[in-house]
Amino acid sequence: MSNTFGRLFRATTFGESHGPAVGAVIDGCPARLPLSAEDVQPDLDRRRPGQSDLVTARREADVAQIVSGVDGGVTTGGPIAVLIENLDQRPGDYARLRSAPRPSHADLTYRLKYGVLSASGGGRASARETAARVAAGAVARKLLAVRYGVEVVAWVETVGEVNSRPPDPAVVTRAAVDAHPVRCPDPAAAEAMAEAIRQAQRAGDSVGGVVGCVCRGVPVGWGEPVFGKLNGELARAMMTIPAARGFEVGAGFAAAAMRGSAHNDPYVWKDRRIGTQTNRSGGIQGGISDGEPLLFRVAFKPPATIARPQQSVDWDGRPATVEGGGRHDPCVVPRAVAVVEAMAALVLADAALLAAAVR
Amino acid sequence: MSNTFGRLFRATTFGESHGPAVGAVIDGCPARLPLSAEDVQPDLDRRRPGQSDLVTARREADVAQIVSGVDGGVTTGGPIAVLIENLDQRPGDYARLRSAPRPSHADLTYRLKYGVLSASGGGRASARETAARVAAGAVARKLLAVRYGVEVVAWVETVGEVNSRPPDPAVVTRAAVDAHPVRCPDPAAAEAMAEAIRQAQRAGDSVGGVVGCVCRGVPVGWGEPVFGKLNGELARAMMTIPAARGFEVGAGFAAAAMRGSAHNDPYVWKDRRIGTQTNRSGGIQGGISDGEPLLFRVAFKPPATIARPQQSVDWDGRPATVEGGGRHDPCVVPRAVAVVEAMAALVLADAALLAAAVR
Amino acid sequence: MSNTFGRLFRATTFGESHGPAVGAVIDGCPARLPLSAEDVQPDLDRRRPGQSDLVTARREADVAQIVSGVDGGVTTGGPIAVLIENLDQRPGDYARLRSAPRPSHADLTYRLKYGVLSASGGGRASARETAARVAAGAVARKLLAVRYGVEVVAWVETVGEVNSRPPDPAVVTRAAVDAHPVRCPDPAAAEAMAEAIRQAQRAGDSVGGVVGCVCRGVPVGWGEPVFGKLNGELARAMMTIPAARGFEVGAGFAAAAMRGSAHNDPYVWKDRRIGTQTNRSGGIQGGISDGEPLLFRVAFKPPATIARPQQSVDWDGRPATVEGGGRHDPCVVPRAVAVVEAMAALVLADAALLAAAVR
Amino acid sequence: MSNTFGRLFRATTFGESHGPAVGAVIDGCPARLPLSAEDVQPDLDRRRPGQSDLVTARREADVAQIVSGVDGGVTTGGPIAVLIENLDQRPGDYARLRSAPRPSHADLTYRLKYGVLSASGGGRASARETAARVAAGAVARKLLAVRYGVEVVAWVETVGEVNSRPPDPAVVTRAAVDAHPVRCPDPAAAEAMAEAIRQAQRAGDSVGGVVGCVCRGVPVGWGEPVFGKLNGELARAMMTIPAARGFEVGAGFAAAAMRGSAHNDPYVWKDRRIGTQTNRSGGIQGGISDGEPLLFRVAFKPPATIARPQQSVDWDGRPATVEGGGRHDPCVVPRAVAVVEAMAALVLADAALLAAAVR
Repeated sequence: MSNTFGRLFRATTFGESHGPAVGAVIDGCPARLPLSAEDVQPDLDRRRPGQSDLVTARREADVAQIVSGVDGGVTTGGPIAVLIENLDQRPGDYARLRSAPRPSHADLTYRLKYGVLSASGGGRASARETAARVAAGAVARKLLAVRYGVEVVAWVETVGEVNSRPPDPAVVTRAAVDAHPVRCPDPAAAEAMAEAIRQAQRAGDSVGGVVGCVCRGVPVGWGEPVFGKLNGELARAMMTIPAARGFEVGAGFAAAAMRGSAHNDPYVWKDRRIGTQTNRSGGIQGGISDGEPLLFRVAFKPPATIARPQQSVDWDGRPATVEGGGRHDPCVVPRAVAVVEAMAALVLADAALLAAAVR
Repeated sequence: MSNTFGRLFRATTFGESHGPAVGAVIDGCPARLPLSAEDVQPDLDRRRPGQSDLVTARREADVAQIVSGVDGGVTTGGPIAVLIENLDQRPGDYARLRSAPRPSHADLTYRLKYGVLSASGGGRASARETAARVAAGAVARKLLAVRYGVEVVAWVETVGEVNSRPPDPAVVTRAAVDAHPVRCPDPAAAEAMAEAIRQAQRAGDSVGGVVGCVCRGVPVGWGEPVFGKLNGELARAMMTIPAARGFEVGAGFAAAAMRGSAHNDPYVWKDRRIGTQTNRSGGIQGGISDGEPLLFRVAFKPPATIARPQQSVDWDGRPATVEGGGRHDPCVVPRAVAVVEAMAALVLADAALLAAAVR
Repeated sequence: MSNTFGRLFRATTFGESHGPAVGAVIDGCPARLPLSAEDVQPDLDRRRPGQSDLVTARREADVAQIVSGVDGGVTTGGPIAVLIENLDQRPGDYARLRSAPRPSHADLTYRLKYGVLSASGGGRASARETAARVAAGAVARKLLAVRYGVEVVAWVETVGEVNSRPPDPAVVTRAAVDAHPVRCPDPAAAEAMAEAIRQAQRAGDSVGGVVGCVCRGVPVGWGEPVFGKLNGELARAMMTIPAARGFEVGAGFAAAAMRGSAHNDPYVWKDRRIGTQTNRSGGIQGGISDGEPLLFRVAFKPPATIARPQQSVDWDGRPATVEGGGRHDPCVVPRAVAVVEAMAALVLADAALLAAAVR
Repeated sequence: MSNTFGRLFRATTFGESHGPAVGAVIDGCPARLPLSAEDVQPDLDRRRPGQSDLVTARREADVAQIVSGVDGGVTTGGPIAVLIENLDQRPGDYARLRSAPRPSHADLTYRLKYGVLSASGGGRASARETAARVAAGAVARKLLAVRYGVEVVAWVETVGEVNSRPPDPAVVTRAAVDAHPVRCPDPAAAEAMAEAIRQAQRAGDSVGGVVGCVCRGVPVGWGEPVFGKLNGELARAMMTIPAARGFEVGAGFAAAAMRGSAHNDPYVWKDRRIGTQTNRSGGIQGGISDGEPLLFRVAFKPPATIARPQQSVDWDGRPATVEGGGRHDPCVVPRAVAVVEAMAALVLADAALLAAAVR
């Protein structure tokens, strides 16, 4: 059951990097939404490998093909299946030949849970699966844009020890984010981040980072009480992205050090509604959107696969050395921006439908 | 649908602080588990108001009554309903008379979402609801202890700007945590924290904090791939607790600043299994438990309700002043420790049943 | 997970006949619906034991108490908990002392599945559980009536070998059904049915029957494609009622013997919409309501518990005789009418919310 | 959400007859199950059109391609995607040109629910969707056979007014069923059924029928109490098959006319377990399997699409005549046998995993 995300707007992903294709089935998308593969492709292009020297050299064109659910240029209300063929398939059985689990990688847990050591099984833990999320997220994003005027913009906020000046969430654009391949809209920091990534790569190493995200135009009332809080859904969505290690909304961990008088957002009258003067709550009160932009951040660990030799044990517990091979990202955050946006869009599309249901 | 948590081990909570009772229905608990109200009461006692001068003076005995699902001292496989009567009910209609929404409180969003301004409606956003979570969590905890030998221990790690030396997660006990009413097992820090809380209270203010948690004895293989990752489930569970603003697992946000060679946990042979030398991953690889203790932290904002006057607007948008009245916690973390443990137990019981199903 | 019914409008039931209470938690009911215990009581009264000489003599007042989710006479959007105390509790441990399973009763399967032979465990299979369904169904019925003008009326169509002339589904009322305690609106048949029930009872035996049901006012578009068809949801709902053995919609099994030209319902223009001249489809096309009344029938077997001695084996497989004791219904259909209506209302309220979500 | 079936063993189907492919994603299948396309193909062949003169002449080879979730000949625990290309695609826009809804067909309800009149939208209500169910069901069937020794056999029991002598459920085989293209294991009746189908076809008409099914080898304990009863799950599964109008388990509707003393199944000791002498309960007590074979029947209406002219109204309500064109089945039951088996297998695989979870 774990390959489906969402309650009403639901995305099911499938496929491994070593099979013929990955894909997603989006169920619950309302009918009459204009949709074509062109709506999906730009998001896939932002996530795909090989787009700059900062990411893995694996080459995948990642072309989206819509198999069902669209007719005459609009959605029909039926399930929308999107297929993305794997072009850069490698023989694939290297996984089975691997003699020792890679540290901080899912090799071990998948093998012990499922009793198979397959390229395909472990392939569900690989970043390739996120292509399907991005495809599904693109459909959600289209729905949010057309129906509700909601837009989602994410950016890189830190890479390793390089911090940036966070953008103004009210105005930051995807264009500003994409101006530099590292996807940090602060130009000076972006260059330093790129250099940090290159340094890590030259050292046979990897480096982590933080992605920030804003969702603008979310109306009051999305999110459900108690266990369906919008911050809970966002937290789960983000923490299911490979390599995600932390999530915070609004002031987040910094709020823990504050006093209430400094943290509370005073209400003011603006735009013919009750709004807040500040937005330390990140646009959510009691788990329900309050009309202000949603703001959150996601921390990503450095990729587990690195070129330099690492100490491990083989499957029988004897000391072994793992040497990371191949074509791997030295830092996930430039590509993770697209995945964070996709997951945020999936959460919001689902919340929008649920809010409509219980009204 | 949002008042139910879990996929197989499911808890549904109900009730408001101004009604006759709150409660929980636990569905999916295996049969033949020894269970009585005595298993639930200690956890409720750790959460209840009025237990020390650091928490709200509201007085609730919070006595658990098991209404169904237990017969002859063991669970029957049927749904377990637990009722907790509200003894300190107040007239209650003050909510309806309130002329302005309280900043950073759910007053506004509930009213706009549901079109009612009721004590009861908003009551679902109140901390009182967490008593039902704690009752359900106690059942989960019993299952985890008896069947799997799993134990969950949470503690206060920071209060406002007061940090503590985190405990050794391998050995920290509930007794050590409860040695000081602030529930920080570092005695020196505990006293400073208590003082910080009292200072905030004297200032008519509130203060935030961070809770840490360890789950020991979790076997390899709990958690599901892709959207069912254990860290995702934990993140959601924690972020649905009132006032939670951030979640991190293992090295968390700190991991974002690290390199892979410094973050990866080398594999070693220990206890007849492949284990890790360090535990920066927090016991989870690829969303699946790896046999090491689970480690995570939750950030809580300062309570929104404070005594000092705050700027707001009334329901029609005219400037207004809100004066926090009554009996509210100046800091939630001493009581939140019990809620964090309860939610962790609910996540793990659910993960255990799911893991058994797909084996 | 199996004690919850519904996707958006969700009812969770709990409790056994030998415990202090049974109850239901209704989650997902929209806010601002006028609701009080008076809306629930009449339905409970139709289901309760002891209401005539045709049903079990067990006496239960079955008084509904609303514990949460209602404030100021309207629903708040929070979960609505309804409690029904058990007044006629019997010592209860007779179940544990029972030496042999009762034929065609859940004694055996519950014991083998759960490993407990408890009054409480088996109590989930008892008719007492349906009191909670009826309470939940009453809330659904109120929502359907107030918001959509939908009404649900069920009646007894056969008892044993006594058939009746089915009522005109367009006009049959609850009053007409309740005119005779057997709940068949055909007066002549009703008396013959009552006599058939009394005869079975005098013979220490029991007898089956069929309940018919109409749902009027259902708008076009309720029900979801493929696996969420309205007839599928109704079928499941009805087949979860204790003793239900068959379900058919529209012409049902009779349709299997027909030709398409005789079965198809010609379209005609009526009431400013496209309607059908006949209604052999029972108001559903492709799983989606078509604007005509929903029509279906449910077959109930004779109650398994009978007074006359029956051949069985004891728990160790040795021949044994079971003598049905006590206070049991000789025929379930007079009381099942209320349960069929309740389950239909739960299905429709859920379908209504889902249809609103995906519009 | 309605395109997914199952709670733990979950099948999501997608695709329309007028698009490039239909398919299914099976999520939750345990790892290490031997599986290849050869396991799926025979079931697809039994369902595909064009297999005899009794079914539609539409020609589809229906070749199954497994896209994911299988590696080295065994399942990996990941989602299994199966694609079936549509070869006999027709231009497809005839649906949009259709001037009037076809009686007793989903044209009208889909159009009114979704606001589109597309070949693709309505395509979800077409029998083509069931190819994906059969593919998913074949995976379930393999799991049931390999892990539990469970086998599922369905057959045609009636066609129109032609009844057959039902087979002995203890021994009937797929080979016996397939001996005649009408799939009735009673040879004399089979030929009469074939003739009834041909007569209906020659008359430009269609005819209904009943399918019977047995599931052998189901252990005690599958099925969940209250709302998760096995008969409820089977009922829903069957009633979601296009054209299904009725469902009964065990003695079914006939039970309604019986007395308890005649209907109850006496317990006897057999095969080292407590079994029943008769099986009027159809292998289910209290919603839980009792170790006897599961027995149920499904009634199918005559196909709505017939060649002869039918009275209808156009989309604006003006009188119109619909002339059924094309290549349609005059009777669905010979092909429905494969769909009934597939849905039964999906229900049982899901029940098996659930039973394992709550043990």
